Amino acid sequence: MNKDRVPLYEALLDYREQRRISFHVPGHKNGQAYGSQGGAGLLSVMMEIDVTEISGTDDLHHPEGVILEAQQLAASCFGAEESFFLVGGSTVGNLSLILTVCTTPGDILIVQRNVHKSVLHGLMLAGAQAVFLQPQIDSFSGLSTAPTAAQIDEALEVYPNARGVLVTMPNYYGMGTDLTPLAEACHRYGVPLLVDEAHGAHYGHHPTLPASALACGADGVVQSTHKMLSALTMGAMLHVQGALLDRALLRQRLAMVQSSSPSYPMMASLDLARRQLHIGGAATFTAGLAAVDAFKRGLAELPRFGLLAPPQPESPPAGFASAGNTTQPSAAMAAYTTQDPFKAVIYDVTGALSGYELQRQLEVHGCIPEMSDAQYVVLLFSLGSTLEDTNHLIRALAHISIAGEGDERSPRNVPVMKNAVEFSTWNIMKASVSTPIPFNLKPVATKHVESVPLEECAGRVAAEMIIPYPPGIPLLYMGESISKDMQKHLLVLSAAGAKCHAAADPELQSIMVFKKDRKQENL
Amino acid sequence: MNKDRVPLYEALLDYREQRRISFHVPGHKNGQAYGSQGGAGLLSVMMEIDVTEISGTDDLHHPEGVILEAQQLAASCFGAEESFFLVGGSTVGNLSLILTVCTTPGDILIVQRNVHKSVLHGLMLAGAQAVFLQPQIDSFSGLSTAPTAAQIDEALEVYPNARGVLVTMPNYYGMGTDLTPLAEACHRYGVPLLVDEAHGAHYGHHPTLPASALACGADGVVQSTHKMLSALTMGAMLHVQGALLDRALLRQRLAMVQSSSPSYPMMASLDLARRQLHIGGAATFTAGLAAVDAFKRGLAELPRFGLLAPPQPESPPAGFASAGNTTQPSAAMAAYTTQDPFKAVIYDVTGALSGYELQRQLEVHGCIPEMSDAQYVVLLFSLGSTLEDTNHLIRALAHISIAGEGDERSPRNVPVMKNAVEFSTWNIMKASVSTPIPFNLKPVATKHVESVPLEECAGRVAAEMIIPYPPGIPLLYMGESISKDMQKHLLVLSAAGAKCHAAADPELQSIMVFKKDRKQENL
Repeated sequence: MNKDRVPLYEALLDYREQRRISFHVPGHKNGQAYGSQGGAGLLSVMMEIDVTEISGTDDLHHPEGVILEAQQLAASCFGAEESFFLVGGSTVGNLSLILTVCTTPGDILIVQRNVHKSVLHGLMLAGAQAVFLQPQIDSFSGLSTAPTAAQIDEALEVYPNARGVLVTMPNYYGMGTDLTPLAEACHRYGVPLLVDEAHGAHYGHHPTLPASALACGADGVVQSTHKMLSALTMGAMLHVQGALLDRALLRQRLAMVQSSSPSYPMMASLDLARRQLHIGGAATFTAGLAAVDAFKRGLAELPRFGLLAPPQPESPPAGFASAGNTTQPSAAMAAYTTQDPFKAVIYDVTGALSGYELQRQLEVHGCIPEMSDAQYVVLLFSLGSTLEDTNHLIRALAHISIAGEGDERSPRNVPVMKNAVEFSTWNIMKASVSTPIPFNLKPVATKHVESVPLEECAGRVAAEMIIPYPPGIPLLYMGESISKDMQKHLLVLSAAGAKCHAAADPELQSIMVFKKDRKQENL
Repeated sequence: MNKDRVPLYEALLDYREQRRISFHVPGHKNGQAYGSQGGAGLLSVMMEIDVTEISGTDDLHHPEGVILEAQQLAASCFGAEESFFLVGGSTVGNLSLILTVCTTPGDILIVQRNVHKSVLHGLMLAGAQAVFLQPQIDSFSGLSTAPTAAQIDEALEVYPNARGVLVTMPNYYGMGTDLTPLAEACHRYGVPLLVDEAHGAHYGHHPTLPASALACGADGVVQSTHKMLSALTMGAMLHVQGALLDRALLRQRLAMVQSSSPSYPMMASLDLARRQLHIGGAATFTAGLAAVDAFKRGLAELPRFGLLAPPQPESPPAGFASAGNTTQPSAAMAAYTTQDPFKAVIYDVTGALSGYELQRQLEVHGCIPEMSDAQYVVLLFSLGSTLEDTNHLIRALAHISIAGEGDERSPRNVPVMKNAVEFSTWNIMKASVSTPIPFNLKPVATKHVESVPLEECAGRVAAEMIIPYPPGIPLLYMGESISKDMQKHLLVLSAAGAKCHAAADPELQSIMVFKKDRKQENL
């Protein structure tokens, strides 16, 4: 295979050159519908290659030509046996994987408790039962990663008939661990490890990047090529290897949840993103990593701000660590061992600025972060980041640092160390394996639920999700039985002033549960 | 509301102007990742507006700003109470509607037998039971349209607990009927009429175009804005009105099946397509309709080719009818009363050229049709078609006509009249209402099915879809019981030499059925 080729994109260029007359969809007729006055504005160029399934452009759902070739090139680039282009984002990849392994209502899937909503939607569509595993919590940052291999072992020991295990790696903050032992645990029991690697499409392609999920032995991996590589938004890929996934069924599932008229420019952007990486190799990231390193050096000059980094066995390289991350625990007890260098997670070490406020001030300076929470701001660099971007960002942070001198700690800001205390409670629960929790498409009628004080919730079945912030991990899912331990934990959180934004009672004094007589129907 | 505005597209222009620095997804950083050498080629411009959910760009799944405003403008333009932008094509619209009305496994939906596969996928995901209605068959063309109001009445009489009725209008060939009596039948029973109007996004916007499904009283309507209007491929809309659809549940379903990172250029193209129509009104179609009329006049000069047209109460306008459509029945017994002027369905009146062969020859002349079957070629015009397109097409057809003079009728070509005979059999079945057929996600294990001769299939349960060509309507769905009448019909088709491409035995001598002992599990 010639990795320099972009067969799908080239087919679109050919289409554009040939200027054959369209008596087919799309109705814009290569943009002609908007006339020469350019009513389509910036979309005009795209419309010239916004083609459909005609001779020469292949068919995503039955690829035999340029799409098949483009997917085979992707498989060789990403180290998969087979790769599938996704035009509906990682969302459709997660849905398809779950619908492929869970084919009968009630099938059990072992799932990390804190997952993207598309995973929950997949469980609902499959009518599956989830056995949830507590993620590990980093006691310094209060952020959660994935469960351990030991937890997966325990869960598969209790539920050997589970259809598979699904974890998210890396997390939104770029934190992760080695997936190899997790894959080994799954394979000991003959079940597939499914990985939502939406944030790690670039992993494994540079020495400073963590290994990819495929390299660690995962069986099915979903990547948002648009997030950390350079495809158009909604352009993603699903990679598979091994014999534990039914490929024919997977194809059928992908055809179910993806458009029967997929966007060719979007698919071509996957082809282009693949070629860029395929040709450039590690060098693809040189400029972006230089921008990241410059940022870290610059941030080290601003003691006001901390940068999260995984515990280092030996002292971190000079200029890497900053004021905020000197109190972290040793690698031995670490909840994460890898950090995506392209995800810079910063915070105000004085605690004066919440993550939300720091993001707001950065935006005033023209720097738009990826996201923020009560504590942290996530700055997303990529292979497309430049030194100019970094210099602008450092100048902005310097302004914010100076302007904020003498700030008092803001009371509404949750200090890091308080998290660490809260999470000692978590550690009690860390190894716990939930009972199977049924997911389905049935809406809950209000007449079947009631609110009870936390003191009376033990033994009842939750009728709402309880997600305390921090750390934003679902403690309870709808349909989950509330144990005495869970009740105790909820009372601790409530007393500590944790907030549950989506809950009926955000103050967590009471909780919605199913009325006893309706419980069975909803389980 | 100011219909001249394109709030979402304007927000993308603002984003591009502001040139703030991206520390967020997508990774291509407005195309910066490809450098100034233009490695993104024709996608570079699009990447400049390929933004994500940041301040000012709103959120498709919780619209409060420019997306909400753009959707409200769409609702006013298309005559809906509420409109939803779709980035996964009409596919996700059909999935969402079915998942909204069928919330419990076993729920019954009354469905036209010949529907797009996304409807079948929706039934599978919902675990619903389908009660299928035979479409009407046009005895002249052999093509099928929708069921009648009388059939819907009969079905709702038998299955009053059905959750709704779903039909497709117009069909792929642009043929349709008045939906008003169908909507009235549904509303008499208090159930919603769901319409897959993928091919009719332009309906109701010009006097020569049929009325839209919404105007006829449909409750939920899916339109492929990219097919007959001018959005980018995968850009579609879902329109709703009335109180029969749970809007909150519909929103939740849309969030389930659509990407959590929707494409902004695609959504902006829906905004632009809406404005074009909103401002231009009927005049939007003037140029395209002129191209269509010129085509019809030109085709009338080529007696070799016929053009399908609905039966006219009085004689059609001069130059409209052509050699092929003089033997059609009166409007009284018509299976369709409306024809999309933008869908020109032509055929070789000598029967020498199959639709497939005619398409091949047109493509040699640089004219790419929408589709073809054994009989017909569908030429799709739109608001973007021009007189130049038409002239090129007529020249091509003239060449083909002359080159083909003296052609013998090709034996592999199915003559229209033979269809008419076959379809007399259909008319016996036309009013029949199928028993509820269960759909689910469970793959069928080969060990549970067996092949039996047609002579022995009565009373068994089909384990495969039987779709004879012509007319390509599923006669049997997997899980459907085979009645004695159906067996008789299958024997007639088999003797007539009908082909079933997807069947285990395309010659239709035998059929796959469930082994008797497994029948229950699969029902």
